[in-house]
Amino acid sequence: MIFSEYVNINTGGKNEIVDITGDVRSILKNSGVSAGSILVFVPGATGAVTTIEFEPGLVRDFPELMERLIPENITYLHNETWHDGNGHSHLRASLIGPSLTIPVIDAEPVLGTWQQIIFLEFDNKPHSRKIVVQVSGE
Amino acid sequence: MIFSEYVNINTGGKNEIVDITGDVRSILKNSGVSAGSILVFVPGATGAVTTIEFEPGLVRDFPELMERLIPENITYLHNETWHDGNGHSHLRASLIGPSLTIPVIDAEPVLGTWQQIIFLEFDNKPHSRKIVVQVSGE
Amino acid sequence: MIFSEYVNINTGGKNEIVDITGDVRSILKNSGVSAGSILVFVPGATGAVTTIEFEPGLVRDFPELMERLIPENITYLHNETWHDGNGHSHLRASLIGPSLTIPVIDAEPVLGTWQQIIFLEFDNKPHSRKIVVQVSGE
Repeated sequence: MIFSEYVNINTGGKNEIVDITGDVRSILKNSGVSAGSILVFVPGATGAVTTIEFEPGLVRDFPELMERLIPENITYLHNETWHDGNGHSHLRASLIGPSLTIPVIDAEPVLGTWQQIIFLEFDNKPHSRKIVVQVSGE
Repeated sequence: MIFSEYVNINTGGKNEIVDITGDVRSILKNSGVSAGSILVFVPGATGAVTTIEFEPGLVRDFPELMERLIPENITYLHNETWHDGNGHSHLRASLIGPSLTIPVIDAEPVLGTWQQIIFLEFDNKPHSRKIVVQVSGE
Repeated sequence: MIFSEYVNINTGGKNEIVDITGDVRSILKNSGVSAGSILVFVPGATGAVTTIEFEPGLVRDFPELMERLIPENITYLHNETWHDGNGHSHLRASLIGPSLTIPVIDAEPVLGTWQQIIFLEFDNKPHSRKIVVQVSGE
């Protein structure tokens, strides 16, 4: 069985991190799947998905890491052409990646106790995001 | 239903980035799957897969990012042993990762408008690559 | 068919890298699946999974890369709050990611000749880890 829904969120841009674990759990419950997996996918080139312990410290540490690895204000050819100033957003999204798959056993996503599923908004302006959550299994 | 094909590409090495979105769409169409997902996987330890807005600026910005994060010409123990000078290639591939999964809804991969699927050739010499595209669903 | 098992490993912490390819192959064999895919997932926020050529040089180069990108001994807000000194562990795990999917064709995982599946222990203390290996297919 394949069950696809969207998580709709409005972000403020600029490295906002959104905990979508509750939304993913709800969609899993709606699907009725007890054994299988959940694919979380970000359609779009300036957002990404991963897991983290969602606590206030790391929610600030992670964007600081991104700024150290891929600074906003250095020269990117993307910005020279498009003048939208979000070259860093694209590179951060490609580095972290748009897809994550979580196993489902006994009708639960097999996450660690302190592990949450997060959407990372890397763009420099607010967005309405539709994140795909697709449950497969039986 | 599970449908597996290969995308065959010849790369010039040295951070060549290949847009394989068209190939992936063709394989999806051949599969006849309308709901499910597409797994893209790179067999090999010096290539990787992710998504990006495939435009000339980012196609140069991304390799420059890789060179900043994982420079070619610093000391790697891999190179001390094997003398093939591609320690950076291996580390870049492990960082980005070999697998990507894209949901399929209504017989289409759910990608953003400006989001392409790319193969990243990190090795320092040309390669013939066989990238797995596996469509699962119904 | 969906077949889930755990790989149980004890790690020493501090960037230990464990080759779990043999365990994954055994679980695939036990599943009897000949066409499909294998999801490898790390429940927990301080471990990750990827592929690498598992040879002694890269097994030391990769942790050195992590230390360059995400040093252990800089200020993290996570550490200011929790005083467990593993802010870097969390960030490294989120960067690399907890999930990896490998296609199965003709009852074999489609890996490159020099490509192994690895678990990365990023925490600063020993752990008992249960890594999920879920085989789907027919």
